[in-house]
Amino acid sequence: MHAFRSHTCAELNKSHVGQSVRLSGWVNRVRDHGGILFIDLRDHYGVTQILADPDSPVFAGVEKLRSEWCIRIDGEVKARDESLINPKIPTGEIEIFIRDLEVLGAADELPLMVFGDQEYPEETRLRYRYLDLRREAMQSNMKLRSDVVASIRQRMWNSGFREFQTPIITASSPEGARDFLVPSRLHPGKFYALPQAPQQFKQLIMVSGFDKYFQIAPCFRDEDPRADRSPTDFYQLDMEMSFVTQQDVFDTIQPVVEGVFEEFGGGHTVDKHWPQISYADAAKWYGTDKPDLRNPIKMQDVSEHFRGSGFAIFAKLLEQEGTEIRAIPAPNGGSRKFCDRMNAYAQKEGLPGMGYIFWREGENGIEAAGPLAKNIGPERTEAIRLQLKLGKGDAAFFLGGKPQAFEAVAGRARVEIGNALGLTDNKRFAFCWIVDFPMYEKDDETGTIDFSHNPFSMPQGGMEALQGDPLKVLGYQYDLACNGYELISGAIRNHKPEIMFKAFELAGYPPEEVTKRFGGMVNAFRFGAPPHGGCAAGIDRIVMLLADEANIREVIMFPMNQRAEDLMMGAPSEPQNEQLRELSLRVIPQE
Amino acid sequence: MHAFRSHTCAELNKSHVGQSVRLSGWVNRVRDHGGILFIDLRDHYGVTQILADPDSPVFAGVEKLRSEWCIRIDGEVKARDESLINPKIPTGEIEIFIRDLEVLGAADELPLMVFGDQEYPEETRLRYRYLDLRREAMQSNMKLRSDVVASIRQRMWNSGFREFQTPIITASSPEGARDFLVPSRLHPGKFYALPQAPQQFKQLIMVSGFDKYFQIAPCFRDEDPRADRSPTDFYQLDMEMSFVTQQDVFDTIQPVVEGVFEEFGGGHTVDKHWPQISYADAAKWYGTDKPDLRNPIKMQDVSEHFRGSGFAIFAKLLEQEGTEIRAIPAPNGGSRKFCDRMNAYAQKEGLPGMGYIFWREGENGIEAAGPLAKNIGPERTEAIRLQLKLGKGDAAFFLGGKPQAFEAVAGRARVEIGNALGLTDNKRFAFCWIVDFPMYEKDDETGTIDFSHNPFSMPQGGMEALQGDPLKVLGYQYDLACNGYELISGAIRNHKPEIMFKAFELAGYPPEEVTKRFGGMVNAFRFGAPPHGGCAAGIDRIVMLLADEANIREVIMFPMNQRAEDLMMGAPSEPQNEQLRELSLRVIPQE
Repeated sequence: MHAFRSHTCAELNKSHVGQSVRLSGWVNRVRDHGGILFIDLRDHYGVTQILADPDSPVFAGVEKLRSEWCIRIDGEVKARDESLINPKIPTGEIEIFIRDLEVLGAADELPLMVFGDQEYPEETRLRYRYLDLRREAMQSNMKLRSDVVASIRQRMWNSGFREFQTPIITASSPEGARDFLVPSRLHPGKFYALPQAPQQFKQLIMVSGFDKYFQIAPCFRDEDPRADRSPTDFYQLDMEMSFVTQQDVFDTIQPVVEGVFEEFGGGHTVDKHWPQISYADAAKWYGTDKPDLRNPIKMQDVSEHFRGSGFAIFAKLLEQEGTEIRAIPAPNGGSRKFCDRMNAYAQKEGLPGMGYIFWREGENGIEAAGPLAKNIGPERTEAIRLQLKLGKGDAAFFLGGKPQAFEAVAGRARVEIGNALGLTDNKRFAFCWIVDFPMYEKDDETGTIDFSHNPFSMPQGGMEALQGDPLKVLGYQYDLACNGYELISGAIRNHKPEIMFKAFELAGYPPEEVTKRFGGMVNAFRFGAPPHGGCAAGIDRIVMLLADEANIREVIMFPMNQRAEDLMMGAPSEPQNEQLRELSLRVIPQE
Repeated sequence: MHAFRSHTCAELNKSHVGQSVRLSGWVNRVRDHGGILFIDLRDHYGVTQILADPDSPVFAGVEKLRSEWCIRIDGEVKARDESLINPKIPTGEIEIFIRDLEVLGAADELPLMVFGDQEYPEETRLRYRYLDLRREAMQSNMKLRSDVVASIRQRMWNSGFREFQTPIITASSPEGARDFLVPSRLHPGKFYALPQAPQQFKQLIMVSGFDKYFQIAPCFRDEDPRADRSPTDFYQLDMEMSFVTQQDVFDTIQPVVEGVFEEFGGGHTVDKHWPQISYADAAKWYGTDKPDLRNPIKMQDVSEHFRGSGFAIFAKLLEQEGTEIRAIPAPNGGSRKFCDRMNAYAQKEGLPGMGYIFWREGENGIEAAGPLAKNIGPERTEAIRLQLKLGKGDAAFFLGGKPQAFEAVAGRARVEIGNALGLTDNKRFAFCWIVDFPMYEKDDETGTIDFSHNPFSMPQGGMEALQGDPLKVLGYQYDLACNGYELISGAIRNHKPEIMFKAFELAGYPPEEVTKRFGGMVNAFRFGAPPHGGCAAGIDRIVMLLADEANIREVIMFPMNQRAEDLMMGAPSEPQNEQLRELSLRVIPQE
């Protein structure tokens, strides 16, 4: 017989009754039923019930076992009494009468129970991650993660992509965050950087004549930690294609993502239609560039109804240039109670309040209610109702000012309303492409123009577009939003050196600076660069959505804590003097 | 029609004749046949011949094209004349009459030609890697690499393994090389390390209850560069299993490796029988722990035949303790010319020479020749011949002394002889497991005992074995050798804290030191650690063998040069002062 096991803890059933078997695993728990001891023996695959009565030759040994001891047992498979069958687990028809026992690894007193669902502080969980990971929820999250990654890989291969590994110890590849630096021993005073993304390398792979590249790539950003972000590294599905348009990228990646969500989405609806929404429309309709389309609410510009109206606050506001009044329709929100609740929500968000109208059954049919309706009168109120296609029992909320100033709050109010009214379908994955991102934005304080997103994107209209107003230039750049999260970001790249230099010039970067920072890639573009584009999808984010977890650390095997420390391994730590000497470095003492 | 292509450059054949098509790719070369221009248009998939005669509306444009310009063409598919068909390429039956041309990316004068097989200095190739990678050999190596990695992944999944990603910015995980350090911004004066291998993490994954883990994992070692080693990072297939013996690991990984070599080995024989050879036998028979078994030569101890013999040098040598005479049999090497050549080889290797005997047709049948034979006389000579099972036309070479002193040279001579005599079958992959590595070795100078290989291996015999002579303790540790290279290294791990502390104590590490250096893992072992073991296979090495390349940089997309520099991206480079300030670091000026 094998040294450790003849079967796993999920394998035995009625067909094995009478067999002598050997199992190894962990003591999930020990129960004493009137002098008969039951062990739930657990391994990666399942749980099997082990039984020891006082006649067992190893009863004394079994008595000493504690939770999470790792043991090997020999015994005989017996059928359970009909009344004791547990149909919930595959081994529920049998139990093992123990004959021999070996303790493979004893356990000290546990700082964290594996069995049960007691909650522990995150610091405890991360310090004893190897115990935390034995818990059912973490086993399941980690299995899900590895299944998702394998499925993505398979789907990319099936779509004609090849996976290539790009350098990790390399030059800086800025993506808007800080680099992690790696001092060079052979070149004192010089440093490598860990890539914030394989952006430049994947573009170089296209220039190198490889047609379709992907990689499940580690990315490194020295960022201040947040719950949904790892403070050090994260993984992305990075992909790039040559000779493609934006639509080709969409047509390629949609089946991959759709397939993964269908495979692992737990039966939730996965939208097949992925609308393309311009950045400008997304802001107007949803107040964000990552809208949650499970929520059917679409905001609308209702400025005309308030211009010169009796509601002085809005009427005055509209006299300023660039202002607007926007409505958030709230189907079934037509009660004073709900409207007051949302008004309170707006105040919590730092606004003076949120105007509203709601419609109810009146003496002559439908009737508008609320202070705002009184101020602007029935005609305007009715025009608003018709524009928003609302009816009895519905409401609408209003925010005004310069869109940049209120759009984010409006977006959050939209989410709040959708959730509160049960309009948002929680058993659905809704996707949309956000397209036509502006290439540039103006800093309101300094008045300077800078790239608003990715500087490597091709401007729509090419060189010609760069001759006019930079703020009107749109890029071939796109995001995929799912349920309010940004899942994917990508672009058709600017592969022409002259357009690239011009694009950077508009953002205030002289050619020398471009060459210095992105020389590797820009030089390559001088030798027959193909048009190309692609995208990157956040793996951790995808798994979070599929596992329905809000904290990224629930889907990472060994995550850092929020202070970017690994409590289990003790990182970061003080280097040895010898190491610093070899690297020609000195630490500056803190004041 | 699609903006860039209706077909790839490998797709068109006779069935497309008459169709209007669009292709994109690179100008592989332009040929002028009496005023008619031929372009070989190349993409990732193949080459298609494009033809422009002076009547073509874009003839003037075609005349301007140069090698490696990236272009888009429209044209009509025509059948080639029977006599001009090229059966070697899939598009050899057709050519395209060009009608429209767009230059997608022009090219400056090329520092490196893509077409043809001109050799360039490595520095040129790495600086313009994107051109180098367009060459046929590199395209093929990179395709092979990605296919091999995908096949390994698939095979591991099919064997029940899951891939998990382990941290890259983490604590030091020493494997005998220097760490790359990463300064922490949030914790001034502290550093992370990049893992030399995921060794501790994979063991922690086993302690966490995951049964079978693998990863195609990047490993980081700050090593002085060599041709067959990357100076910064490399990839390994890292795997670990719980509840297994050494033989289980062999039985699991052999089909994976065997399958990959069969799939990508270009028809070379792949040995099905992988002998297990002890470390001691490997040294004795092959002079190395990574023997090339394609070479049938097996060295033998022939000391007895020289003890007290007339060959004074060996006879005297054998009076010293621990000395030995070893024979390298050389079937078909029985000529003075060959023996002299090998003698010269030995001198080049720094030895005074290499004694030999060869056998030829004499007056009374077989006859031994050479000075050594004369010295020891016919009886001993014949006894040697019989022991070595040699005959007429064969030879044997002899080396003597303390085995450690001559084994390496003997091993190299064995390789040289095998190659020179054509005994080594170059169309074969021959594998063997090297087992029973000693746990400890003694430093001859200091007399101290240290681990000879992996300190985390389980000593054979467990705690009991550690009570005796450390130099006699063998570990459950193993390597896989293939054609003279080490492909895999692995071990059954020491999962019992008390045995681990004892094992380290023997090598001079007090418990505090063990806890300090490997605390994360050792602590974990106190909470029910399962027996486990695994191995790691060098991906770059496997691809090198399959691609028949001797330099690791031929199988890496963007490698560093031998000075650990990336010439294309300009890494490493000087950091900005601001970056150093944020990291609380100062560079010590060089003297």
